[in-house]
Amino acid sequence: AQLYKAAGEQTADSTAKPADLSGYTRVKQELVAPPFAPEHEQVATGGPKIIEITMETEERLMVVDEDTGASVWALTYNGSVPGPLIICHEGDMVELTLRNPVDSMMEHNIDFHASTGALGGGGLTHVYPGEECVLRWKATKPGCFTYHCAPGGAMIPYHVTHGMNGAIMVLPRDGLKDAAGNPLRYDSIAYFGEQDYYLPMDENGDYKTYDAAGDDYADSLEAMRTLVPTHQVFNGAVGALTGENALKAKVGETVLMVHNSCNVDSRPHLIGGHGDYVWESSFTDPPLTGMETWFVRGGSAAAAMYTFEQPGVYAYVNHNLIIGAMLGGTAHFVVDGDWDNALMEQVVAPRSFET
Amino acid sequence: AQLYKAAGEQTADSTAKPADLSGYTRVKQELVAPPFAPEHEQVATGGPKIIEITMETEERLMVVDEDTGASVWALTYNGSVPGPLIICHEGDMVELTLRNPVDSMMEHNIDFHASTGALGGGGLTHVYPGEECVLRWKATKPGCFTYHCAPGGAMIPYHVTHGMNGAIMVLPRDGLKDAAGNPLRYDSIAYFGEQDYYLPMDENGDYKTYDAAGDDYADSLEAMRTLVPTHQVFNGAVGALTGENALKAKVGETVLMVHNSCNVDSRPHLIGGHGDYVWESSFTDPPLTGMETWFVRGGSAAAAMYTFEQPGVYAYVNHNLIIGAMLGGTAHFVVDGDWDNALMEQVVAPRSFET
Amino acid sequence: AQLYKAAGEQTADSTAKPADLSGYTRVKQELVAPPFAPEHEQVATGGPKIIEITMETEERLMVVDEDTGASVWALTYNGSVPGPLIICHEGDMVELTLRNPVDSMMEHNIDFHASTGALGGGGLTHVYPGEECVLRWKATKPGCFTYHCAPGGAMIPYHVTHGMNGAIMVLPRDGLKDAAGNPLRYDSIAYFGEQDYYLPMDENGDYKTYDAAGDDYADSLEAMRTLVPTHQVFNGAVGALTGENALKAKVGETVLMVHNSCNVDSRPHLIGGHGDYVWESSFTDPPLTGMETWFVRGGSAAAAMYTFEQPGVYAYVNHNLIIGAMLGGTAHFVVDGDWDNALMEQVVAPRSFET
Ligand SMILES: [Cu+2]
Ligand SMILES: [Cu+2]
Ligand SMILES: [Cu+2]
Ligand SMILES: [Cu+2]
Ligand SMILES: [Cu+2]
Ligand SMILES: [Cu+2]
Ligand SMILES: [Mg+2]
Ligand SMILES: [Mg+2]
Ligand SMILES: [Mg+2]
Ligand SMILES: [Mg+2]
Ligand SMILES: [Mg+2]
Ligand SMILES: [Mg+2]
Ligand SMILES: [Mg+2]
Ligand SMILES: [Mg+2]
Ligand SMILES: [Mg+2]
Repeated sequence: AQLYKAAGEQTADSTAKPADLSGYTRVKQELVAPPFAPEHEQVATGGPKIIEITMETEERLMVVDEDTGASVWALTYNGSVPGPLIICHEGDMVELTLRNPVDSMMEHNIDFHASTGALGGGGLTHVYPGEECVLRWKATKPGCFTYHCAPGGAMIPYHVTHGMNGAIMVLPRDGLKDAAGNPLRYDSIAYFGEQDYYLPMDENGDYKTYDAAGDDYADSLEAMRTLVPTHQVFNGAVGALTGENALKAKVGETVLMVHNSCNVDSRPHLIGGHGDYVWESSFTDPPLTGMETWFVRGGSAAAAMYTFEQPGVYAYVNHNLIIGAMLGGTAHFVVDGDWDNALMEQVVAPRSFET
Repeated sequence: AQLYKAAGEQTADSTAKPADLSGYTRVKQELVAPPFAPEHEQVATGGPKIIEITMETEERLMVVDEDTGASVWALTYNGSVPGPLIICHEGDMVELTLRNPVDSMMEHNIDFHASTGALGGGGLTHVYPGEECVLRWKATKPGCFTYHCAPGGAMIPYHVTHGMNGAIMVLPRDGLKDAAGNPLRYDSIAYFGEQDYYLPMDENGDYKTYDAAGDDYADSLEAMRTLVPTHQVFNGAVGALTGENALKAKVGETVLMVHNSCNVDSRPHLIGGHGDYVWESSFTDPPLTGMETWFVRGGSAAAAMYTFEQPGVYAYVNHNLIIGAMLGGTAHFVVDGDWDNALMEQVVAPRSFET
Repeated sequence: AQLYKAAGEQTADSTAKPADLSGYTRVKQELVAPPFAPEHEQVATGGPKIIEITMETEERLMVVDEDTGASVWALTYNGSVPGPLIICHEGDMVELTLRNPVDSMMEHNIDFHASTGALGGGGLTHVYPGEECVLRWKATKPGCFTYHCAPGGAMIPYHVTHGMNGAIMVLPRDGLKDAAGNPLRYDSIAYFGEQDYYLPMDENGDYKTYDAAGDDYADSLEAMRTLVPTHQVFNGAVGALTGENALKAKVGETVLMVHNSCNVDSRPHLIGGHGDYVWESSFTDPPLTGMETWFVRGGSAAAAMYTFEQPGVYAYVNHNLIIGAMLGGTAHFVVDGDWDNALMEQVVAPRSFET
């Protein structure tokens, strides 16, 4: 925490000249709950904007796995794990009002990987329960970037592994492009937050419960040290994006999958599909193409684009299949449309060969 | 399994028009055991082909480590871990007959990462013991891709971590190229399957034995949850590609190393050599060059090309050296030819410096 | 060890013609302790050089974490973890004198990932206590490469996880370039060695101590098998590059961060900054750009370039934040200069919102 205070003071002491905000238009962005994306333009119209957003640091008890009753006092931005997806264009400014409810147990802040200086804003945004602050920063680098709480020391991984992270997508002003510079457009965004939880167990192997946020601190640190999560899920809980909550698409539609993994490496795979275009690094590098499984460096967000060619169910998984199938790293897309036998055909359905 | 049945039914119900197979020539590909590659052309001659292959799902007891007697009831395609390497060209179709022997204990299927729809074919290929099916799909994306069994739920990682995975290489019709478009050709292929095993131990730390395939299911799931393999080997067992089974090459020859790692990340390194050209993503991206250690995203296959410049022994390892040296992730190349002192010279052999 | 002896003998037996050293100029490179870099040119002047260096294999007791008293009998090159950074240009030769002090407990050698043949030199450099040898090899591939001790078998990961590794940077003769071929220059180098330690604990969870190098061998192997390090630090010890030992820079200065991770994957992130240019693979590939978090494949060295735009403290971390904040993977930069409100501004400092 010392480090963060030092960063804050240095800035506060500075006699830097005020920012020139002429030429910017102010707009509000209504943040929405994952897996959805806020309203936005793919190609920016008009000049640079100051995008006003508000986030509240909400601490809430969440069920992680209904089958076992495993739960966590999640630390969140706006109540969801991951926090809401923010979208802007290169050259825009983001102006965040961060509010910590008075009934919170803990202090929080925010570090934007997309920003420059003061520990990504972490040094300027420490809010105690009942406090608010406002941070403005310029998005100079296009790409998908993680943001997260970082109160200092072991509290950093503690908050991050309790859900306090999300992503911002900084689009090029003229939109996404392939390696040759041709425009790439999507019909929808699917926003995934991969969350590694290290939930403490009692001597019988049952998940422990706690009365309030923060009460699991000592136990959690012990579990975290093993580096082996008990759960690794998409969007907060096992099955949060399957069954009734599966994502929907149609054959011929293009989805941009934005994947945030703030702490652990991930290797997303779309079963039955591909990453036609994948941005593992940033939007200033040409996308990788035709990938079966891509890589999200732990502590980053990445994007992959796919155009559905067949109807049916697709599972989007962490392709360490132990994580995908046993720790919770699975989401589903349900895609409508007509089957294409030219791409795949069941020539002979399963039958006995002892005839 | 529910998910897979749904995918199968959707396709079966569909009134899709039949595929137009005119213009395709039918050929059979004789699959061979790893680390070898089937006969193939690097540059395709003639038009697109329908490549007919047959695989049998064989369950067999395999020794994983002769020193400790560790063994596993391996679940395999054609009896080997990894399953055989399949090779085709972009635009070809693969037509697989998949047969589950009547004496098998378990149902199996196959998910091709290279294919499109129906969970990579997994939804259309569930065969119970004594059943067969035929699946045809079009290879639209060039690259190396993993394939694996995926019967649903925790059975997916169970089958995959019991050896049931392999790779297909989909070559560009005009062969491999460097970033400038110059042709790249190889003299031989070395096909590696990296297999993570999670073998159950008894209370004395001895590896348990089981009477039949599937009997280790509950114990295996418990071991898998730790995410820490007991063994991580190339081609099924510790030492499968060393000593008498080492790969052979000559100075001046170019080898294409195809590396399948269906579940865990790998970081292959050729001790004493390099990856002159490395395709981590696909063959539609320019290869990375001059790499010391490359990356295989868990749940993918990748390729690396190297031209030997010195004679001697080369170790091909997972360069987490604990995995490489202690868990089994090592193979050997023995290379004949003349030493080049201009590249490396032992100027002074080890000698005492107390003279 | 067998393997290494075979490699050595093969070379010794060879009747290869001597290397033609005409056209090379001999120079000595004074190696310095990390995180610093030896004197060097970014663009080579004159023809190719034979760069003479000397390294001593020093075994020494090092404190890994002052808070817990955890210590290790480190195995080192020149007494530091990581070993010193070596710098040359493509086409130069490196001529190393390797000396094992007479009071050492163990044999050592060196495998240069940048070199070609004889297991990277490992087969030609086995020195017992009191022995020295000289190895010369040509740097044909530009990039950052790891080097490490590799005495054979489980001794390889044992020596590597006891600190016996470092990096060499082979610069293109005309220096670093962006994707368009424009020159990229740096003002300073920060050299990080990420070290995973697996320190044995007693039944009370206290770190064990040992009388001499090598005495922890059996215990260490057991700890290593878990693949979960007890510590993962930069430059040998927790806090080695924070506080008084923090790195220094100024706004407008460009730093080249050379990151060696000889065994485990890493995902470096500069909190508050970026990787403007990142070479994960080699200097023959165009750098990735605008990255939040990059990837160091376990068993490799990589480079990232950043120009500071704001004053203050920056933390350079492994962004698995459990590793970064709890296992020791953190270093600090302290940067002087003027704050730029156009990039980031604290519009409203934290205040109560219940007014
Ligand atoms: Cu927080
Ligand atoms: Cu961060
Ligand atoms: Cu199977
Ligand atoms: Cu798969
Ligand atoms: Cu050594
Ligand atoms: Cu090595
Ligand atoms: Mg509340
Ligand atoms: Mg910047
Ligand atoms: Mg990103
Ligand atoms: Mg049988
Ligand atoms: Mg497709
Ligand atoms: Mg692949
Ligand atoms: Mg000494
Ligand atoms: Mg070479
Ligand atoms: Mg390197």
